[in-house]
Amino acid sequence: MGETLVGWKRSHMCCEVNEVMAGQEVTVMGWVHKRRDLGQLIFIALRDRTGVLQLALDGNNVDAALFEKVASVRGEYVVAAKGTVALRTEQNVNKDMKTGKIEIIIEEFRILAEAEVPPFQVADVGVKDDMRLKYRYIDLRREELQNIMRVRHITAQTVRRFFTDEGFYEIETPMLANSSPEGARDYLVPSRVHPGSFYALPQSPQVFKQLLMVSGFDKYFQIVRCFRDEDLRANRQPEFTQIDVEMSFIDMDDIIEVNERLMKLVFKEVLDVDLAVPFRRMPYAEAMERFGVDKPDLRYAVELKDISAFVKDGAFGLFTDAIASGGSVRGICAPGMASLPRKQIDALVEFAKGYKAKGLAWISVMEDGELKTSLSKFFAPEQLVGIVKTFDAQNGDLILICADAKNDIVFDALGNLRCEIASRLGLADKKALEFLWVTEFPLLEWSEEDNRFSAKHHPFTAPMDEDMAILEADPGRVRAKAYDIVLNGVEIGGGSVRIFQRDVQERMFAALGFTMEQAQANFGHLLDAFKYGAPPHGGIAYGLDRLVMSLTGTESIRDVIAFPKVKDASCPLTSAPSAVAEGQLVELGIGVVKEVPQGETEDC
Amino acid sequence: MGETLVGWKRSHMCCEVNEVMAGQEVTVMGWVHKRRDLGQLIFIALRDRTGVLQLALDGNNVDAALFEKVASVRGEYVVAAKGTVALRTEQNVNKDMKTGKIEIIIEEFRILAEAEVPPFQVADVGVKDDMRLKYRYIDLRREELQNIMRVRHITAQTVRRFFTDEGFYEIETPMLANSSPEGARDYLVPSRVHPGSFYALPQSPQVFKQLLMVSGFDKYFQIVRCFRDEDLRANRQPEFTQIDVEMSFIDMDDIIEVNERLMKLVFKEVLDVDLAVPFRRMPYAEAMERFGVDKPDLRYAVELKDISAFVKDGAFGLFTDAIASGGSVRGICAPGMASLPRKQIDALVEFAKGYKAKGLAWISVMEDGELKTSLSKFFAPEQLVGIVKTFDAQNGDLILICADAKNDIVFDALGNLRCEIASRLGLADKKALEFLWVTEFPLLEWSEEDNRFSAKHHPFTAPMDEDMAILEADPGRVRAKAYDIVLNGVEIGGGSVRIFQRDVQERMFAALGFTMEQAQANFGHLLDAFKYGAPPHGGIAYGLDRLVMSLTGTESIRDVIAFPKVKDASCPLTSAPSAVAEGQLVELGIGVVKEVPQGETEDC
Repeated sequence: MGETLVGWKRSHMCCEVNEVMAGQEVTVMGWVHKRRDLGQLIFIALRDRTGVLQLALDGNNVDAALFEKVASVRGEYVVAAKGTVALRTEQNVNKDMKTGKIEIIIEEFRILAEAEVPPFQVADVGVKDDMRLKYRYIDLRREELQNIMRVRHITAQTVRRFFTDEGFYEIETPMLANSSPEGARDYLVPSRVHPGSFYALPQSPQVFKQLLMVSGFDKYFQIVRCFRDEDLRANRQPEFTQIDVEMSFIDMDDIIEVNERLMKLVFKEVLDVDLAVPFRRMPYAEAMERFGVDKPDLRYAVELKDISAFVKDGAFGLFTDAIASGGSVRGICAPGMASLPRKQIDALVEFAKGYKAKGLAWISVMEDGELKTSLSKFFAPEQLVGIVKTFDAQNGDLILICADAKNDIVFDALGNLRCEIASRLGLADKKALEFLWVTEFPLLEWSEEDNRFSAKHHPFTAPMDEDMAILEADPGRVRAKAYDIVLNGVEIGGGSVRIFQRDVQERMFAALGFTMEQAQANFGHLLDAFKYGAPPHGGIAYGLDRLVMSLTGTESIRDVIAFPKVKDASCPLTSAPSAVAEGQLVELGIGVVKEVPQGETEDC
Repeated sequence: MGETLVGWKRSHMCCEVNEVMAGQEVTVMGWVHKRRDLGQLIFIALRDRTGVLQLALDGNNVDAALFEKVASVRGEYVVAAKGTVALRTEQNVNKDMKTGKIEIIIEEFRILAEAEVPPFQVADVGVKDDMRLKYRYIDLRREELQNIMRVRHITAQTVRRFFTDEGFYEIETPMLANSSPEGARDYLVPSRVHPGSFYALPQSPQVFKQLLMVSGFDKYFQIVRCFRDEDLRANRQPEFTQIDVEMSFIDMDDIIEVNERLMKLVFKEVLDVDLAVPFRRMPYAEAMERFGVDKPDLRYAVELKDISAFVKDGAFGLFTDAIASGGSVRGICAPGMASLPRKQIDALVEFAKGYKAKGLAWISVMEDGELKTSLSKFFAPEQLVGIVKTFDAQNGDLILICADAKNDIVFDALGNLRCEIASRLGLADKKALEFLWVTEFPLLEWSEEDNRFSAKHHPFTAPMDEDMAILEADPGRVRAKAYDIVLNGVEIGGGSVRIFQRDVQERMFAALGFTMEQAQANFGHLLDAFKYGAPPHGGIAYGLDRLVMSLTGTESIRDVIAFPKVKDASCPLTSAPSAVAEGQLVELGIGVVKEVPQGETEDC
């Protein structure tokens, strides 16, 4: 069937051949992207990683065997050709092709491997996801995915070069680790040598990187695979890649400064963009107040306004009740949306309900200044004008208002509504890169379920020095030395300064309602390590997948991973996970519990 | 307890301070390596990643509170000091310290974290392994391990830089993969979403890297974690790191050439050594014949000799029987060991028996030329002289002879004996770097157990073009396009050119005794991919851990891994693996089979 390479060596990649080389002999190899026959003339678009190059053969000038062979190829055959670089005539120049001014006149030709007709063409657009993933090796031949993988490679290497130049060591941490007491569900790995015991695949190398600081490595980074056995939402994968960083003898500003320089370098190398540093910083409380979310997209200006003071004595029970119960009434102004048909306003109300809002009130400021509103029964015209002024609404704008006894719900509904409106109106400049540090996160958050505080980041996050005094008296108000880095409304990374002092750690555990025994059981080896001299330290972790999505403008996380999983955490290409031989389970001392029906799981 | 960093910023790492800076104020931070009190004089050896710097305080010149504080520190306290760089007097210069000409006169001092008395001192030598691993964060503070982790980091970054410059992409492949039908035991990961199904942690990304070649990425590399659930021998770890490489449109020489340049760069960057390339190459058959192993240490010359022809008609039944049964009689000459006491010769015989040899015959060529031998009963003096000549033995040498019906046993026993003797005699130049490519490995090896051939590397390894004709007629004699790279007798990497042609692949499966149905079941997704245009391709994989051992002269693989596992695959630091909550198992649809007693396993 196929021929071998024996005696042949590739001289150039497809797009390395150019018009300066006219007359030169080259040997090129790749896949048949397209073939065109014009009687005795055959053209082959030869594709490799660099792009496409045209091969040409004139049957009138060559022997029949060569012509037959070239004529026999079909799409995706793997071929090699020796030939001479020739300039195309003026009318045959293809300006859309990098190699459009030239072609290779085939002199010798080998078919290295034949190919069956593929389930879809590499050049096809709109191929369904399940087909793309099942035949991932064909999908990955597409220029777009080839480019994403190239960008991912450059990004990772740039990150490594940056940290190496800054004196960080990349140190590998274990994959066969221990199950962690807090956080998401772990993937477990049964131990054969210790039946009944399990390793866990790490959700992050958090404990290990802190141990490395206690070990004196001073500056650590790692690009590392992490695992979370969660039900997949959009843009989540069971295994994902983290850029993990930790430094000693530093405070928050040092970490932020290093990471701004990192981003500056990465965006310069990948996109040739000069980012302005320092990035903006915004306390968590301000982000929530103004944008309703802790990762505001600053590419557009629409902001939330609190109108509780205006409406708290009004006639609308939904508003007054919400405020009386400790909640608030807030809204946003959608520019130019006043004449939105009622049906579409209803759709926005439904959207808000998806975030647990009970509904939305609305005020349309018509082009002539007239106010149309769902609130006319409850507020006098001059009151409505007051509300409109609060939003600085112009003629033609639409004000949407949400009230709830829980501020979280108001923020969540309006924060997401803000994004939805911006998306509908195309408010975001697609080329803008709005970086933001969100700082001063709450240290603790109240868990209704457990009736206690839990750590918003993790139990080793340091409180802000200014708030140490109220850790016992008012733990809910303590802010943390925690920070997220947000790009265009996407959290691409986050981290914190850690607690390294034993007395502070004990106060933190007390605030979390842990006895020292419980703390020891859960975090024993890190607490033990801290006994022997822990330096001040802190760090950050980025989602590499998300960063690459931002750098390539990709919407789906699956497109930035060579072999991704789908929603049920399976791989359509390899069919993982799959059944294994019973003997393998016997060796591991585990059995499949038959009662659990296929496809169902229980929460516990 | 501890103080904070507030308002302080480290100005220098310990060994960045030098005598040119005399009079300059610095702020340094680190661990108290040692403390010396001379009445009112206190000296602290401050340690960070770069080394040790002396801090000094004269109680006569400072206020009592500062003196008290500095006097209170103990070993491994984490401290920060502001002070002035001062030159030491001539008699106080310490030539063994990089910073031995200077000290810092403490002006301000903070105790950042106290430390309990550690279980061993960082400067201690000969600390037992179990203590070192349990308190790994103290062990890792040692200069030796700090240096190894630095070399490991530089090695990995150099490898990445090399391949990036050569146009390779680093592409990440899945950790949650499928169980592989051949090779070692897999670590399994139960699927929660698909109860009864399992992922497997990859033993290598072999299939994925071949799929990447079919996807057109042309040149791939990855530094990647791999997993094998084997009973640990010395220098094995359940998780290990591989430098994984694959290229398209190449043959063996291309791969070897790229990798020689890689090694040249790595050894230049890490050891500042200029390696001579190309490295030597030796066919597998020659390596076995001359050195008894497929990874000969070429730092010394001792070679095996075949004396079967001399002894086949002799009177010694053990020799004649071995030869008659298809085996051979071979030996090696140990230079200058003729006068080895009988007891020590017996120890060498026992050593050979450890490799299944039935025993060793010996001939001592005494300093006066007299022969002492265990063979005197069976061979006439002139026959013995003939044997001695074959070995080119000199006066004072000892010849050790092994006979067996199985050549493998003869090779294994003598090959290992060769290393043992070289080690006893110190024959190897410790500074020598003897690289060697071993090539032309057998494609197949006969499995007594399964009564069929199995692939020596893996079923996608290409046969040598010259041997294609005998694949059916004499499969055992077919050589493969497979190669190992050996450094000083250690296999640091290996790889092969792959089969990319369907007809060759089918002939290979036939030789392995697989039906196409079995092949499809085991290797389906790779075979499917090959239908749609597979390029000629091949690659190599290095053990990064072993490479770093070679670069640092480290004997134990545990010393090149930050958090290694011990022999029973557990981690003494974190206690992984461990029991997990019953609820976690219920969610996964698995149960622990109680019948299997703790600590025992069955082979199946």
